[in-house]
Amino acid sequence: MPDSWLDLDPDAQFGLATLPYGVFSTGPDTEPRVGVAVGGHVLDLGGASRALDAPFTDTVDRPSLDTLLAAGRPVWDQVRSALTRWLTDPAHADAVRPHLVDRSTVRLHLPFTVADYVDFYASEYHATNVGRIFRPDQEPLTPNWKHLPIGYHGRSGTIVVSGTDVVRPTGQRKPPTEPAPVFGPSVRLDIEAEVGFVVGTPSPMGERVEVDSFPDHVFGVFLLNDWSSRDLQAWEYVPLGPFLGKSFATSVSPWVVPVAALEAARVEQPAQDPEPMPYLRGTRPWGLDLCLEVRLNGHVVSNPPFAQMYWTAAQQLAHMTVNGASLRTGDVFASGTVSGPEAGQRGSFLELTWSGKEPLRLPDGTERAFLEDGDEVVITATAPGPDGTLVHFGEVAGRILPAR
Amino acid sequence: MPDSWLDLDPDAQFGLATLPYGVFSTGPDTEPRVGVAVGGHVLDLGGASRALDAPFTDTVDRPSLDTLLAAGRPVWDQVRSALTRWLTDPAHADAVRPHLVDRSTVRLHLPFTVADYVDFYASEYHATNVGRIFRPDQEPLTPNWKHLPIGYHGRSGTIVVSGTDVVRPTGQRKPPTEPAPVFGPSVRLDIEAEVGFVVGTPSPMGERVEVDSFPDHVFGVFLLNDWSSRDLQAWEYVPLGPFLGKSFATSVSPWVVPVAALEAARVEQPAQDPEPMPYLRGTRPWGLDLCLEVRLNGHVVSNPPFAQMYWTAAQQLAHMTVNGASLRTGDVFASGTVSGPEAGQRGSFLELTWSGKEPLRLPDGTERAFLEDGDEVVITATAPGPDGTLVHFGEVAGRILPAR
Repeated sequence: MPDSWLDLDPDAQFGLATLPYGVFSTGPDTEPRVGVAVGGHVLDLGGASRALDAPFTDTVDRPSLDTLLAAGRPVWDQVRSALTRWLTDPAHADAVRPHLVDRSTVRLHLPFTVADYVDFYASEYHATNVGRIFRPDQEPLTPNWKHLPIGYHGRSGTIVVSGTDVVRPTGQRKPPTEPAPVFGPSVRLDIEAEVGFVVGTPSPMGERVEVDSFPDHVFGVFLLNDWSSRDLQAWEYVPLGPFLGKSFATSVSPWVVPVAALEAARVEQPAQDPEPMPYLRGTRPWGLDLCLEVRLNGHVVSNPPFAQMYWTAAQQLAHMTVNGASLRTGDVFASGTVSGPEAGQRGSFLELTWSGKEPLRLPDGTERAFLEDGDEVVITATAPGPDGTLVHFGEVAGRILPAR
Repeated sequence: MPDSWLDLDPDAQFGLATLPYGVFSTGPDTEPRVGVAVGGHVLDLGGASRALDAPFTDTVDRPSLDTLLAAGRPVWDQVRSALTRWLTDPAHADAVRPHLVDRSTVRLHLPFTVADYVDFYASEYHATNVGRIFRPDQEPLTPNWKHLPIGYHGRSGTIVVSGTDVVRPTGQRKPPTEPAPVFGPSVRLDIEAEVGFVVGTPSPMGERVEVDSFPDHVFGVFLLNDWSSRDLQAWEYVPLGPFLGKSFATSVSPWVVPVAALEAARVEQPAQDPEPMPYLRGTRPWGLDLCLEVRLNGHVVSNPPFAQMYWTAAQQLAHMTVNGASLRTGDVFASGTVSGPEAGQRGSFLELTWSGKEPLRLPDGTERAFLEDGDEVVITATAPGPDGTLVHFGEVAGRILPAR
């Protein structure tokens, strides 16, 4: 990696290996703008592009990433190259510097308009754990699980940016000890640590997207917390899947890491047996070596390894469109809970506490089966960048407010 | 009902009792505009509002219904009152007449931007039939079915307007005779005759919408065909629900009938046992006496009675938000397949042909288990209007194209 004329702390977040995109504002009355995180700064991308008379100025001088997402891979590459050039060549320093804002002072927004939201279920460890817990009398993996990446549509309208408080949901649940369902606040409120992907380039209805076309359609990657009410979910989900147990809130990290930043993070996915059908095979590996960390009230409770996911995002994209479903700019799809083989690698409290039967003991002396009011969950991640650098994903954080 | 100065055929579609909203264009190069169907005409609502200097002109002089949807119940009532006045008082005839377009010449568009799409499962007859077919060794209704309106999120991006061709989807299915899934075009392609609802007034995250608030939030009603691939669905839907079996296309009728047009169609819903929880109870009935008709290649194959639905749209709205999920302008929710107790009242071929075992014999001498390439399905509906009039819903039509 070339050096920046900016004095970047090599151990801090957001070196030149990442250059993630987001949307920020600097005060309550200022319009949100597209920004790029670099070190302790946010670069006002529209402002810098205007100052440097960049050909893509009109694409990025916007209140959201929507126009950049729709612009497609050649423009994404052009913007990323320009950013690297501007931040490394001292000749640009005078023009760029006035457009750097102190990152600690900005407010971050949901960076794009979410179109559809699909959530997958791609960790074999997670699906096996959940199968054992929810359906103890059956095989943990359903017969379809290794043939296709199972997914379902979630609620786009309740996708919120990191830092948004989450009100504990209320609804029906049926405790095993009761003859009929009861009504009230969820008592088994959980997280799901996931990785999200956002589509930039759309595809027409009736046509499918190949596994190898993943980088032409997907703009970037972020972290996602699929808040889940296990008691609402357990009562409602047969036969049509999760609904209110998930739809109250889904939090996303504010910085979208471009797919181009993840070249060094690409790894072979775990061996797949049976061999997937041809439409689920590609020529290059799309496993991604992201290391996630889940913290509850400041204490690390899990380190889920994304490289262990059975199905890749490229396979998920191909599956999602194999029936001719179109893609729109802003479509989000998420990996499903990231859980690894070890107890300390599970991406949900359902698994970490084995459905509440083995509460976590926190260093502050308290115990947790599921989330309590006031609890804050923060998920972070890093991935290998070029030349020993690290790609940073920032964080997705949320605090639980009492039920209303 | 007062008479119109327009010479409306009392037996034709779209008398003054309906006055549905849509979006039309008059040529390939003209901008879509909000229109109102009345008899054989479309009233250019923006044009008429400008000519008559209506206070809501800016709300309706638009390329979609989005702004009108967001304007809320008082404006919806104001526009509907004005329309009735303009079309009945001869004093307005000269100002209105120039803004009437021959309905047979217009192209109709998807009338609003779809936000989230939720599909329910509210017919006891349908759910019982499907349970018997898909899970013959179990109770047909799952234990939760009579306690809550079961629903799931569908794909918003593939909601298309009536008349859009539907490409036969391709994907994985597992014939019972095969040891492993096979890949190819769906061989059990089906419809679901449903009624759709569109939200106008949003609600904030963390708060719920009461059953009685239904007419404050829901703008209007239309017909919906939830095209379904039964073979894709059967293989994929456990445990997270339908996904690719539904996401390739969902067709909607182009004319949105205002909730205000359905006062005379309101009926008591079927008795509910057990009594629903308080959050699912309202003070006024929201059963709706719509009579649907399903035609295959011109032949009537079913007459599903919407008044027989176990759960009402008002209960569905309350359920959908009881966990604090917000509503957005443009959210669509659909009833689920409308099936009545009689064989000729079933809203899907899955039920009409009992999973293909009892093919339908059509008057043209052919038989149908599921849909063949080239088949056209048209769903229409009427409901009682005031003073013996009929409210018309127009139609949702679609033709099957061969798999690509």
